[in-house]
Amino acid sequence: MADQRSDPNGIVGDGAAETVTLWRDLNLATMAGPEGGIGRIEAGAIVTKGGSIVYAGPEADLPEMAGEAMRIVEGEGRWATPGLVDCHTHLVFAGNRAKEFEQRLAGASYEEIARAGGGIVSSVRGVRAASEDDLVTATLPRLDALIAEGVTTIEVKSGYGLDTASELKSLRAARRLAKARDVEVLTTFLGAHALPPEARGDKGAYIETVCRDMLPAVAAEGLADAVDGFCEGIAFSPDEIARVFAAAKAHNLPIKLHAEQLSDLGGAALAARHGALSADHLEYLSEEGAREMAKAGTIAVLLPGAFYFIRETRVPPIDLMRRHGVAIALATDCNPGTSPLTSLLLTMNMAATFFRMTVDECLLAVTRNGARALGLLAEIGTLEAGKRADFCLWDIDDPAELVYRIGFNPLYRRVRGGK
Amino acid sequence: MADQRSDPNGIVGDGAAETVTLWRDLNLATMAGPEGGIGRIEAGAIVTKGGSIVYAGPEADLPEMAGEAMRIVEGEGRWATPGLVDCHTHLVFAGNRAKEFEQRLAGASYEEIARAGGGIVSSVRGVRAASEDDLVTATLPRLDALIAEGVTTIEVKSGYGLDTASELKSLRAARRLAKARDVEVLTTFLGAHALPPEARGDKGAYIETVCRDMLPAVAAEGLADAVDGFCEGIAFSPDEIARVFAAAKAHNLPIKLHAEQLSDLGGAALAARHGALSADHLEYLSEEGAREMAKAGTIAVLLPGAFYFIRETRVPPIDLMRRHGVAIALATDCNPGTSPLTSLLLTMNMAATFFRMTVDECLLAVTRNGARALGLLAEIGTLEAGKRADFCLWDIDDPAELVYRIGFNPLYRRVRGGK
Ligand SMILES: [Zn+2]
Ligand SMILES: [Zn+2]
Repeated sequence: MADQRSDPNGIVGDGAAETVTLWRDLNLATMAGPEGGIGRIEAGAIVTKGGSIVYAGPEADLPEMAGEAMRIVEGEGRWATPGLVDCHTHLVFAGNRAKEFEQRLAGASYEEIARAGGGIVSSVRGVRAASEDDLVTATLPRLDALIAEGVTTIEVKSGYGLDTASELKSLRAARRLAKARDVEVLTTFLGAHALPPEARGDKGAYIETVCRDMLPAVAAEGLADAVDGFCEGIAFSPDEIARVFAAAKAHNLPIKLHAEQLSDLGGAALAARHGALSADHLEYLSEEGAREMAKAGTIAVLLPGAFYFIRETRVPPIDLMRRHGVAIALATDCNPGTSPLTSLLLTMNMAATFFRMTVDECLLAVTRNGARALGLLAEIGTLEAGKRADFCLWDIDDPAELVYRIGFNPLYRRVRGGK
Repeated sequence: MADQRSDPNGIVGDGAAETVTLWRDLNLATMAGPEGGIGRIEAGAIVTKGGSIVYAGPEADLPEMAGEAMRIVEGEGRWATPGLVDCHTHLVFAGNRAKEFEQRLAGASYEEIARAGGGIVSSVRGVRAASEDDLVTATLPRLDALIAEGVTTIEVKSGYGLDTASELKSLRAARRLAKARDVEVLTTFLGAHALPPEARGDKGAYIETVCRDMLPAVAAEGLADAVDGFCEGIAFSPDEIARVFAAAKAHNLPIKLHAEQLSDLGGAALAARHGALSADHLEYLSEEGAREMAKAGTIAVLLPGAFYFIRETRVPPIDLMRRHGVAIALATDCNPGTSPLTSLLLTMNMAATFFRMTVDECLLAVTRNGARALGLLAEIGTLEAGKRADFCLWDIDDPAELVYRIGFNPLYRRVRGGK
């Protein structure tokens, strides 16, 4: 042990995997407090062993770590939160739709833009034409922006490929992000995102392809952690989505759903009855939908970036969710068409400003509830013994600053797997 | 000269101040095109000599720089714009109002917050209690966030001191920012921002103090480049503002005005008739106001961050401004109470999203028109021979991306004074 104890970094113990570190002089927002609270612990400390948290609580109550020598990191009074979770993104795409945005501002109608080759079809064209390498290269700057604000876990959907080869390519590119950067990536197969042009309006036949060809191919390669769909008049009906859910179940994959974004088709209730991890968007959520979500423990993932960018005026019914006890997560929805947003901090500010979510609700929404929306609460999302040591240290006087400030990043240090 | 020609950086010429640099393989948005355009020049180049631009145009038309050896910087196809100008900020303050924001979201009324010591009074208390050093230290992270996005010139107002010593202290702190960072800082005296508590409601007497004590003290120290006021029911009347303008004129200082933010008191027309550089906010601008502004060349400085944060629903009358030919600038309005915003890129996105300003209007608003709002168009704001070599190189395929993306910073390099 002698040589290890003399490690110039002060790292001691049974080797790197077992490094014990005391992160002291911190204030903690553990997100593990009583329901609804962020678990504030002032004068707190975290102890990590290897990649795990073994203690998070008051520094005064630190357990005896008999015989274990520790590396000590001084927090200098900073605040610590769990690493941020962006639980709904379409991060993998090629090109962008800035020119379309410009044309719309100059007065072009959606129809004119579609006729000029714009809209989601242009993203589909971009993804199909791109190589897997191209997709990774195009995506990394967006991922880096999220990571720079403390994101440690991100969900990435396919859905711009819309044929088997292109969906597989997108999901492979998404998986590669976790090798290119020190971040956890969960992938979601979203074949039922939109109808590709070659389907010529036949939604039934396309859904058949999704269920019979694409999903089995995705599952065979182990490329998806979940299956998602878009339930909306402009996308797929509840019946079509139900077929996708059945196929997901046959492959033992959890489900999620884009629901009630532009109208109420009962998608949230449908998803909840199928045991969905989350129903997402929810501007038009009904009381029935909220009741079913609460019963099933389905998380409401709200996406204020899309609300903002498409200038939606109907606010998701937060009070209804509160009343029924539906847990709320927030995510960037990063995508080229309706939310070219790469800031989870700004997402919180928008949720507070537009939706009147409280500071604590916003903070829980990008940590604990983001983890729940991905089925990962046992591993991440709070500062608690047994969780992975993914956390952020912030140069702030109070956690409210993370929600209050606009376009400012006070991240001091992002710790991932204890490092 | 031989030793200079062997400079390892390839810098040659008659010494550092006279370094000639060719910035080649760029696309330029010069902002010097015909009225309303951003002056796109693809396959362009910039030549700087010392701190000035000596050429900006097509690379094919580069002038013969006979006898001048050049340092060459490869732009690799990036886009260049003038350095960004944030022409309206309240950047110097102490503390923040995150807890007040939190309380409001939890349901507290403005009255309850004011009774609990919140609101602008808390910022006044913070600035009065802070030392000049404290103010600089508290402000630098905000300034750094702006600089990181390519801001090269920033305006900073006083107005949280509201007594002579504290206003002087704020302006001295603002001036020191330009020493602490490589950025141009213009300072504006905003004694007529709000009524301090000790004035006990006597606006007339306070304005008298502003004109007779504060403004002369500020002018004597040469601490202000302009004088501003807040013309609004909750602040000062047009008559009170007119007295401030007269005092500014007596000290040969240009003027600006916060006008028509919450109601139409005719502040914009008043400012224009006094030859103001700008009238700012303008949600309630009247046709008469627009006409007077156009006649006087007074710039409309719009502040979408405040519009967003206070959840204003009345959009500034952009069409009216277009019709009358009022030039529009955009700024962050960075302040702790109504716009805790430190991103000029996001400001553009908000102006497009909320106000339906076009991409070109947004880009001109943070360059050329920002410079005009500060009386600096002769020196900065466009890429033209004779201007200061303050510019940005961006990792984008098209300038529209600077407006379209949300919470993403594609700045590759910020050049200030040719360096
Ligand atoms: Zn989505
Ligand atoms: Zn202001």
